[in-house]
Amino acid sequence: MIGFIGGTGPEGRGLALRLARAGEKILLGSRDIGRANEAVTQLSTHVPSGSVSASTNNEVALNSDPVFIAVPYEAHKSTLSGISGLLAHRTIVDVVAPVTFRKGVAYAIPVPDGSVAEEAQTILPDSIIVAAFHTISAHDLLKPNMSIDSDVIVCSDDHKAKQLGINLASKIEGIRGIDGGGLHNASYVENLTALLLNINKIYKIHSSIRISGI
Amino acid sequence: MIGFIGGTGPEGRGLALRLARAGEKILLGSRDIGRANEAVTQLSTHVPSGSVSASTNNEVALNSDPVFIAVPYEAHKSTLSGISGLLAHRTIVDVVAPVTFRKGVAYAIPVPDGSVAEEAQTILPDSIIVAAFHTISAHDLLKPNMSIDSDVIVCSDDHKAKQLGINLASKIEGIRGIDGGGLHNASYVENLTALLLNINKIYKIHSSIRISGI
Repeated sequence: MIGFIGGTGPEGRGLALRLARAGEKILLGSRDIGRANEAVTQLSTHVPSGSVSASTNNEVALNSDPVFIAVPYEAHKSTLSGISGLLAHRTIVDVVAPVTFRKGVAYAIPVPDGSVAEEAQTILPDSIIVAAFHTISAHDLLKPNMSIDSDVIVCSDDHKAKQLGINLASKIEGIRGIDGGGLHNASYVENLTALLLNINKIYKIHSSIRISGI
Repeated sequence: MIGFIGGTGPEGRGLALRLARAGEKILLGSRDIGRANEAVTQLSTHVPSGSVSASTNNEVALNSDPVFIAVPYEAHKSTLSGISGLLAHRTIVDVVAPVTFRKGVAYAIPVPDGSVAEEAQTILPDSIIVAAFHTISAHDLLKPNMSIDSDVIVCSDDHKAKQLGINLASKIEGIRGIDGGGLHNASYVENLTALLLNINKIYKIHSSIRISGI
């Protein structure tokens, strides 16, 4: 069962929708079970029956593996700190991009640990961290009939967990998982989100990236 | 005439080769005129006759516009500081990526000004700075028969200079120039070089990027 902590935001719901359609079972979590139920109801017409269930973040942490982290960056540290014990020995797929807006322009927030994924590793020393899914438009993921055309760069220091992330990405139609090396590469990928959001505004599109040459 | 400061390295020679083939006239500079002559001789069989000439860095700064900066990052500050007066009111196309290697792994060097391009703007307050061409493999550029499959993300705070960068990129066969917004986006693009170098090592290829959705 794939869990989502902070699963009711656009990125969480979008990935849950696509992964459920790819045959996965999803536990969609929120601090507020009412909001989780609402998100699952919203998704239910677009996914196989029973493939997505609602839960609290705590129950997601208890009952799923891998666990996706899809909270806004502002809530990253506090959310993970509150459930660090529950997440020990789980594979954590951190999709959080450190982005803030000033006057309509996106900026990458500097992260003291180097990257959001490395921050997760600091808070969760006994969990296995994978950084992935930062560069796909949540809005495109959420439109059930929108075709996706994107690579997902997956970084982890754990070979098996990285392969799991690459396989999950590649299961989604239109997405190819790419081995992005160790967690030290995560910041380069996470910071692309700010760039792509600014490019979206210039071209009035939803951009994503492809690695050419592979 | 397009000038290259530090034009004898792989990136400078590669871009000179491709731009000369696209019909541009190039002045290839080095601190050492002997090395510049050598690089021009090496390129001469692959470019239209007379399209690339050798020069010193100082003469490049005096006699060309736009001026490409293609030195290693370690020499960026000292090179620009030494010729800042000569570069006033010129359009500077900074292609320098802040990369270092430790145990065979590429890392982005943190730049106090935020990005190499912003560092150039600090040193050259009267020049117009464009950041571009960070994500194409110098090795591929240098192989005359290797086809290129890449976007070049161009960042500048000056609209006209940015358009010049986009047009120059798009003149090269297989490359599409992309408006990457203001100079504040340059670090996200510059830091991609480290990621792509690490992906190259994993897949044993020369990767570059495409923005999809445009």
